[in-house]
Amino acid sequence: MNFPSKLIESAVDELAKLPGIGRKTALRLVLHLLKSETEETTDLADALTKMRNDITYCEQCHNISDTEVCSICANPLRDQTSLCVVSDIRDVIAIENTAQYKGLYHVLGGVISPIEGIGPSDLNITSLIERIPGSEVKEIILAISPTMEGDTTSFYITRKLRELGVKITTIARGVPVGGELEYTDEITLGRSIVERTSYNKV
Amino acid sequence: MNFPSKLIESAVDELAKLPGIGRKTALRLVLHLLKSETEETTDLADALTKMRNDITYCEQCHNISDTEVCSICANPLRDQTSLCVVSDIRDVIAIENTAQYKGLYHVLGGVISPIEGIGPSDLNITSLIERIPGSEVKEIILAISPTMEGDTTSFYITRKLRELGVKITTIARGVPVGGELEYTDEITLGRSIVERTSYNKV
Ligand SMILES: [Zn+2]
Ligand SMILES: [Zn+2]
Repeated sequence: MNFPSKLIESAVDELAKLPGIGRKTALRLVLHLLKSETEETTDLADALTKMRNDITYCEQCHNISDTEVCSICANPLRDQTSLCVVSDIRDVIAIENTAQYKGLYHVLGGVISPIEGIGPSDLNITSLIERIPGSEVKEIILAISPTMEGDTTSFYITRKLRELGVKITTIARGVPVGGELEYTDEITLGRSIVERTSYNKV
Repeated sequence: MNFPSKLIESAVDELAKLPGIGRKTALRLVLHLLKSETEETTDLADALTKMRNDITYCEQCHNISDTEVCSICANPLRDQTSLCVVSDIRDVIAIENTAQYKGLYHVLGGVISPIEGIGPSDLNITSLIERIPGSEVKEIILAISPTMEGDTTSFYITRKLRELGVKITTIARGVPVGGELEYTDEITLGRSIVERTSYNKV
């Protein structure tokens, strides 16, 4: 694609580095900004720069936080006995939005992926192990995506945590709520049968 | 959606103002920037700000240009007898990339849209009419999208240009090259029959 202006070209180049944004989409965004008030562009640029430069992470759970300890860790009303391990900050936001979980979190910052060169030492696993002894944590819930990398990570963590004497659980896998059996992939459907739960405790 | 940080929230808010970017996508982009080098964010912010502040438009054709007269208008090898009228800079880029057109352009900066409050005076129509007398232009090609607004705009321009004694044409509408007849919408297919072209000039 040829551009009539170097300024446009470099703006498109930078936007197209973002995941899921191709050069056509980038050009559409650039032309939108050109048509809008200058403030829309400067506000966007400022928000991104400020976010990137000033962001800090909770020193306990590694969630993003504007304070040293995040609002979840600092909240005494949260259930201090359960700790939910997730790979990503996005997962914390998703779980919080379900309003079904009242415990604490621990953000790994990724999953073990030999292909991408991500090993256990690149993740917040040591700090996870270190925060259990002396804490009130009784159950660790592994809420990691059931992909190959995710399962490898869950397996690795389970092995590391084995000696700490806490209960380790994982989120249920199965047919999505509202999902049709016939449209569910075979592996998920198979697991949902093997890991069936009882309706009545007989 | 609740965010663990005000910095994240305002970055997401700003990104989600862009067309086609929802809050989920915006969050994904923000988390990508947080994982990448700081330079990726500052380079993006700088490119956008510089583009928005320093951009200039060609004083002849209103195409985006880093110089007073754009490289197309300034090129004596371009065919000075045909002038292609488009609504948007994007269209110039798209047509240039076909390498099928060697003439000049005129960018309207939009189409007439009563719903969006865009009238003829909001577009570069006066400067189009003014640049024809005394120029070498013999044919004006209206390359405006065949939507209701686009057709209104083409009709308005045709009426305005009528007295200037130049030939006015419009781009062909029809079945896309490589497109299947059965998947073409009825209106397009209908037009492609009405506006059929001859294989042999008998
Ligand atoms: Zn925290
Ligand atoms: Zn020009």
